[in-house]
Amino acid sequence: MPKLVPFSLSCVIGGSGHITVSKAHDALSPFFGKATSTLYGHKGELRVDAQHAALLNGIASHVHDYDDTHLSTIIHPTGPVASAALAFAEYQGGISGPELLCALTAGIEASCKIGLAVWPEHYDIGWHITSSTGSIGAAVAVGKLMHLSAEQMAHAIGIAAVQVVGLREMFGSDTKSFHPGRAAQSGLLAALLAEKGYTSSEQALEAKRGWANVVAGGGTPELHKYLSQLGQTWEIEANAFKPFPCGIVCHPVIDGCIQLHNDMPRSGRTPETIVKIEARVHPLVIELTSKRTPKDGLEAKFSVYHGAAVGLLWGKAGPAEYANEVVQDKAVIEIRDKVDAAADVDLAADETYLTVHFSNGSKLEKHVQHAVGSLEVPMSDEQLTAKFVDQVERVLGVGAKKASNAAWSIGGAKDVAEILRVL
Amino acid sequence: MPKLVPFSLSCVIGGSGHITVSKAHDALSPFFGKATSTLYGHKGELRVDAQHAALLNGIASHVHDYDDTHLSTIIHPTGPVASAALAFAEYQGGISGPELLCALTAGIEASCKIGLAVWPEHYDIGWHITSSTGSIGAAVAVGKLMHLSAEQMAHAIGIAAVQVVGLREMFGSDTKSFHPGRAAQSGLLAALLAEKGYTSSEQALEAKRGWANVVAGGGTPELHKYLSQLGQTWEIEANAFKPFPCGIVCHPVIDGCIQLHNDMPRSGRTPETIVKIEARVHPLVIELTSKRTPKDGLEAKFSVYHGAAVGLLWGKAGPAEYANEVVQDKAVIEIRDKVDAAADVDLAADETYLTVHFSNGSKLEKHVQHAVGSLEVPMSDEQLTAKFVDQVERVLGVGAKKASNAAWSIGGAKDVAEILRVL
Repeated sequence: MPKLVPFSLSCVIGGSGHITVSKAHDALSPFFGKATSTLYGHKGELRVDAQHAALLNGIASHVHDYDDTHLSTIIHPTGPVASAALAFAEYQGGISGPELLCALTAGIEASCKIGLAVWPEHYDIGWHITSSTGSIGAAVAVGKLMHLSAEQMAHAIGIAAVQVVGLREMFGSDTKSFHPGRAAQSGLLAALLAEKGYTSSEQALEAKRGWANVVAGGGTPELHKYLSQLGQTWEIEANAFKPFPCGIVCHPVIDGCIQLHNDMPRSGRTPETIVKIEARVHPLVIELTSKRTPKDGLEAKFSVYHGAAVGLLWGKAGPAEYANEVVQDKAVIEIRDKVDAAADVDLAADETYLTVHFSNGSKLEKHVQHAVGSLEVPMSDEQLTAKFVDQVERVLGVGAKKASNAAWSIGGAKDVAEILRVL
Repeated sequence: MPKLVPFSLSCVIGGSGHITVSKAHDALSPFFGKATSTLYGHKGELRVDAQHAALLNGIASHVHDYDDTHLSTIIHPTGPVASAALAFAEYQGGISGPELLCALTAGIEASCKIGLAVWPEHYDIGWHITSSTGSIGAAVAVGKLMHLSAEQMAHAIGIAAVQVVGLREMFGSDTKSFHPGRAAQSGLLAALLAEKGYTSSEQALEAKRGWANVVAGGGTPELHKYLSQLGQTWEIEANAFKPFPCGIVCHPVIDGCIQLHNDMPRSGRTPETIVKIEARVHPLVIELTSKRTPKDGLEAKFSVYHGAAVGLLWGKAGPAEYANEVVQDKAVIEIRDKVDAAADVDLAADETYLTVHFSNGSKLEKHVQHAVGSLEVPMSDEQLTAKFVDQVERVLGVGAKKASNAAWSIGGAKDVAEILRVL
């Protein structure tokens, strides 16, 4: 759980320089209020009012499709929840690390439980479930930080529940990452209003014309089933951190190729002497990520061939390896064209068998049973730190290790605002 | 159409002092940005940033349930659209009266046409159709004022379409009027982002997983049918102004009682000498508004007996006549208890027959064929002006006539901001 903050901040900082975030920043800067809350990823301090911080950091959290995933609902819960909670924590001041982690957990549990209640019809019909549940999770998290009474919290949930954000139709446009940003801001707004006695229905989720029935997409919501498990089962434990910013079905191949890259030097082999790569993969990999000749970074996110190539060549597959110029790099294309992938119905979705043939006739093999980032093989603290440092260095150039240490220390902080401000 | 601005402003000013608006103002004032746009209904100038002005004026526009109604969809279109457009017009400056009226019309047509496309299932399942269509209407209106390109306007509509606001479950709480406020703010935000090149899907409304299909509530949206009529049929002509702040089915009785109040002096009769009032009404009046002994203003909105009593006593039924203390007034209760209402299936919904019996044995009769405020008998300019003056005087005490003249003149203004600022 303490991993949440560094993980989440690494996504926000990593995304902060993206053109999508810049456009939103330009559009909204004439409306910024009193500067209390940090916009992460900027050299020097850059603070804005908490509502805009929640929105802009929330956009940045999702723009690389690199955030955490609650695998049973494909909700990315931390973006909306943390963007609201951190912005409020700095505005408010005096909030301790344990308080923050408790609030984040409450918000994430709320989002994921109500998401489970309306899954899968809610997503199937077209809601972007990350944001359509995220405003409620964000309200719960901020409400916790405010120490709202039960009645106020019910109203906060209600005010959040009437702001249903996010349609899947927007995938591929700037608006996709607007969704978690607006969800963060909507949840924060809901808690702020409820704190001052603004009322809503107290059956906002479960009423006949409440949230669950209205957004269920024709399904039968199971709110009672999932909400009665609150505090007994923990969705946060089923929340996985993505090691690579691309379609999750490619991850076993990328994981294996990175391992092979690391194996090569020991036997004196180099990527340049590869003549062929054979991958046996789950059929979904072929169905979803078989872009043979991706033309840019966005398409490369759906190319298992590109993922394999950068893994073998450089031993990593972060946002830098999905830059447009890398996708057009001659060396990358050369290896990419040597990759063959074949579907094997006997494999699990997070499993692959790889064979690399070298020009001297030798070969290396690798079986990945569970890809890194799966629940069985979660990213280690070292991998999360490396991800943090990589994201921060790419954006800020310097101070990444110091920022990482600060982010990891937040769970024990007396006032988290003091740490957030130096990030 | 030029009536829209004074009508809309009268609702905003009339609602501005309501506790619901004050709570929202208190909660959000720490976040206000640069003061460019007026919060109407305050003594002296009170300006805030345009986003918060759109939100708070939008809440005020609806808080008395006194706003305009597009009768085929029961959308109250002007609140979200005008709250966004007026806040932006002051922020931007240099926008003329005709430009403003054109933008308001475009926004209202957009809201109502897409509302028709998903009516009635969308409302039946539980969406508050005023706000769920209102963010899109507000985006169109502000987009017009910005002179967005067709592509930018498509993106603005898309960004607005992912912010679906408002559940009927909230009726009876502060959150009901939050809906049009948040819709106004969401539409303004959408246009601001689109202006800076923020992209969305360009099939946001009609795509398989676009707005219409997602929010259709199981119905089959008829988007093409209604959108192809844009510019040919005008929903704004089917938009009625409410003369009384209560359930619309009471309006024929109130209208008739006000006429009877005006008739009494000529024949030397007074309300004090009334012994009985008989009303024949459409059955819905009994079904929806038969609260015999309303305990406060909110319940009185659903009491045809209260409406009849204040109409007969004072010849008016504005917000002042729905104040809690009026509902408990002895003279009101005395007349209220003398009202009998009987359902007559042969009457139209906007029709009534009234008979008032006096202590000297005489009687007065009145047949209201179409209540004032219906499409057949719209409120006259004089009635709208009286409504404006009444609302403004109640809140500000002074300057009502001057403000009314200013509001009526806006259609010819060179820069509407100059007029809005003095309101």
